[in-house]
Amino acid sequence: MMVIQTLFWHPTRMTENTADVQPIVWRDGALVLLDQTQLPLVETYVTITTTDALIDAIVRLVVRGAPALGAAGGYGVAIAMIEAERESLSAEQLATNIQRIRDARPTAVNLAWGVDRVAPFVADGLVAVLAEAHAIAQEDSRFNRTMAQHGADWLLQHCGDRPLRLLTHCNTGTLATTDWGTALGVIRELHARGKVELVYADETRPLLQGARLTAWELDRAGIPHVVQVDGAAASTILRGMVDAALIGADRIAANGDIANKIGSVGVALACKDAGIPFMVVAPWSTIDVSTNHGDDIHIELRSSDEVTVIANTRVAPANTEGFNPAFDVTPARLISAIATEKGIIEIAQGESPSTWVAHAE
Amino acid sequence: MMVIQTLFWHPTRMTENTADVQPIVWRDGALVLLDQTQLPLVETYVTITTTDALIDAIVRLVVRGAPALGAAGGYGVAIAMIEAERESLSAEQLATNIQRIRDARPTAVNLAWGVDRVAPFVADGLVAVLAEAHAIAQEDSRFNRTMAQHGADWLLQHCGDRPLRLLTHCNTGTLATTDWGTALGVIRELHARGKVELVYADETRPLLQGARLTAWELDRAGIPHVVQVDGAAASTILRGMVDAALIGADRIAANGDIANKIGSVGVALACKDAGIPFMVVAPWSTIDVSTNHGDDIHIELRSSDEVTVIANTRVAPANTEGFNPAFDVTPARLISAIATEKGIIEIAQGESPSTWVAHAE
Repeated sequence: MMVIQTLFWHPTRMTENTADVQPIVWRDGALVLLDQTQLPLVETYVTITTTDALIDAIVRLVVRGAPALGAAGGYGVAIAMIEAERESLSAEQLATNIQRIRDARPTAVNLAWGVDRVAPFVADGLVAVLAEAHAIAQEDSRFNRTMAQHGADWLLQHCGDRPLRLLTHCNTGTLATTDWGTALGVIRELHARGKVELVYADETRPLLQGARLTAWELDRAGIPHVVQVDGAAASTILRGMVDAALIGADRIAANGDIANKIGSVGVALACKDAGIPFMVVAPWSTIDVSTNHGDDIHIELRSSDEVTVIANTRVAPANTEGFNPAFDVTPARLISAIATEKGIIEIAQGESPSTWVAHAE
Repeated sequence: MMVIQTLFWHPTRMTENTADVQPIVWRDGALVLLDQTQLPLVETYVTITTTDALIDAIVRLVVRGAPALGAAGGYGVAIAMIEAERESLSAEQLATNIQRIRDARPTAVNLAWGVDRVAPFVADGLVAVLAEAHAIAQEDSRFNRTMAQHGADWLLQHCGDRPLRLLTHCNTGTLATTDWGTALGVIRELHARGKVELVYADETRPLLQGARLTAWELDRAGIPHVVQVDGAAASTILRGMVDAALIGADRIAANGDIANKIGSVGVALACKDAGIPFMVVAPWSTIDVSTNHGDDIHIELRSSDEVTVIANTRVAPANTEGFNPAFDVTPARLISAIATEKGIIEIAQGESPSTWVAHAE
């Protein structure tokens, strides 16, 4: 009885989320995902009720973005559990399915973190599992707002209290999280304070999350922006057209090295050369203190076709292979600061996640 | 009589060109261009007989690449002259048409250089004009081979005499020149010596000259290669997967700063950080000693749609503008060496085009 109630519960976080779109929401006993592969041309939702469908959605990037993957991992345990009951699966089969969700993508630590946080509640039943999954989503929303304030304060302090020209790479907004976003959350916060002059959104090949998703969010939010090819980022920065660059992260190592969407480290190199801040914005759950440095982060290698085929058109010769690492590592020496919900880790001042953890203990 | 003979003359350079494709050739009184906008899927040629058609071909990048534009500029004077005779245009109208060809694209110095070299022969008649235009193409072929040898020697000396892992950006091969190419010519020369392990070809957004054209040439030449998104270049270099990067140039300033396809300076920053050579390969005609440094180079700003529309599919929201500078400037401080047909300008050793010119005078 309690289970049924929970399955149809519309979570309270829906009222907290003031962003105008709901990329990931639990509704009527299923996970409803905005299909991000179809944006910006088509706004369509998929309803996930099986482990296989969830893994497919994660692998195809129907849902993506490190914090959103954390929430998807949490809700994934609930889906696997409901499926196990419906299909009369054994406990071993359920455990295998939960592990498969955990391993669907390797680089973002948040997916495994979300699964690991919720999985211990399986023994307590679906109500407990869903409560913990909802808690992840609710916390993520709250953390989005807090880190956005920290990041905005820091940037106005370091760049000058005036409308800023910002550059970002990939999508780190509502579509990548459960609320305002990480790096794009900082941009939303700055815009709310009247402190955004222009955003340069890197298009983010191969899957164009910048052109398709970030521009879509900026457009809806009324934030002035242009899209540029990824190759333009270094030049735009070196020409003095940018005050600061902001990105998200998929995994942060103990020493402050970070993994993020391919193309990020090139932005960082240009910021270093130009002497402007390069800020990483991510929830604390993205920090993986068991990873000592960036070289230890597993970089997902995705399909060649994502590079050689665009909009169903083959752009390279038939024999040519695409080399398609989905992420790169930006070493701590190129990072100015990491904004988290707990505050700013001043990487350029010698702080690191490990020193913060040591300090907290 | 002499004129007719010249118009139907198949130039001797056709027998010199041992590359397996003829992107720009004078035939039967017209300029025949391989339509590079259609590659790699379709191999089709367009026959140019009017000033307007030539300008359209240059602007749409049917013909592209700095050295090829030099040849197109030279032959363009012949086209304008034949057209003036056919249409009974005045001398002023002919001069205007020649100037319009010269100004069709602003960044590559070679286009204006080719026009300026041939235009003085207009008073001597079409035979003289065509002879000078053929001379440009013939010289370019010869210079391609010479600079390829210089560049290959230098790289084997600085990287070690072994098969190298090379990275290149945009297309600098047969399709950008009249023969082997500039940077890709060096790669062809190294391959002929058995010294290429793998080429990473940046896809080169927005117009994908790397994926479409460089990969097509590498494939036909049997040179091992992969295509990667431009955002991957910095990471591939920082991960130690590349021994040297090579690019062409559209204009070289007196101090050694160079303009090249957007995305080039990001490759240079990564090479500097990784401590590997970043080589520019270009004919001497690309040097513009009247430009003191890179900040003085006019950067062509192209259409927003080249960024926001791919393969006839809109990838950004309808309201979103694309920022589309076609070139960027790589400062001399990031360049190891410039390979020309006259030899290697050792930029990292303090040499510059202006010191070479002063030395020669």
